[in-house]
Amino acid sequence: MTRLEGEQVLMRIFIGEGDRWKKKPLYEALVEMLRREGMAGATVLKGAMGFGARSITHSDRLLRFSSDLPVIVEVVDSQEKIDAVLPFLDAMLNGGMVTLEKARVIRYFKE
Amino acid sequence: MTRLEGEQVLMRIFIGEGDRWKKKPLYEALVEMLRREGMAGATVLKGAMGFGARSITHSDRLLRFSSDLPVIVEVVDSQEKIDAVLPFLDAMLNGGMVTLEKARVIRYFKE
Amino acid sequence: MTRLEGEQVLMRIFIGEGDRWKKKPLYEALVEMLRREGMAGATVLKGAMGFGARSITHSDRLLRFSSDLPVIVEVVDSQEKIDAVLPFLDAMLNGGMVTLEKARVIRYFKE
Repeated sequence: MTRLEGEQVLMRIFIGEGDRWKKKPLYEALVEMLRREGMAGATVLKGAMGFGARSITHSDRLLRFSSDLPVIVEVVDSQEKIDAVLPFLDAMLNGGMVTLEKARVIRYFKE
Repeated sequence: MTRLEGEQVLMRIFIGEGDRWKKKPLYEALVEMLRREGMAGATVLKGAMGFGARSITHSDRLLRFSSDLPVIVEVVDSQEKIDAVLPFLDAMLNGGMVTLEKARVIRYFKE
Repeated sequence: MTRLEGEQVLMRIFIGEGDRWKKKPLYEALVEMLRREGMAGATVLKGAMGFGARSITHSDRLLRFSSDLPVIVEVVDSQEKIDAVLPFLDAMLNGGMVTLEKARVIRYFKE
């Protein structure tokens, strides 16, 4: 087992499950873009409830809670590679939020 | 698309799925409170397994792992607005944990 | 209700749902280890889609997206206790990633 340690950036993209990019779910389009751009990995977490920029105008509680559940796409990579994908997010997101935090990262590789 | 960037606070509230507040699930009551208090958004993530303060006294493994699954409620907003809801958490939580981290945040708004 | 506040470490372990340790799911073995080592709590989040170190060589999209979904195990504890479990992670992980971040933590205890 090989172990690589350093400081990297945790990027979390908050969008809605119903958001679309060219007829496919936005979170799926984001994962494909992140992979194509050579990011080390990505993880999609689906929320069970929530509200946000997109749903602020919804007044119906059931509609709000069920029709556009939140989704988080998480990526951990170097500052340089995160910076390189930010323009793609500017183009693909039309609502939602991105958070960026520094983290100490340990990566394990199979021998 | 409008883009707004700045430093904000990521608050994550760790509770149990079985926790209650006035007969409703605590995580649901928290989301309603956060919305009422004008937070920008909230995301509820349900855990698949876990243990914590609440389950420390449980000795039965099945009971521990199945009866009170962890739930995380995430909020990103200004330090000022996060500080304003902390007293509500003090009143509503009776167990559990809150973590607070600074993050660089980019918000996207529909034109 | 008792309230305890301080700075602690948020550790997030990113692995695959299919990863194993001694014939059981690795995420389950990790939760048991973390409990045995006296950590304050742990939360397992199952991802809905993703890719990473483990799946980089997979070319089939369906296989990649369905056969090894990402799992995140989250722990918040003191720097000292996190440092104490890192050697266990070095032994148990054969792929995957660990991120470490400092966070302000508020813990609530039942009276």
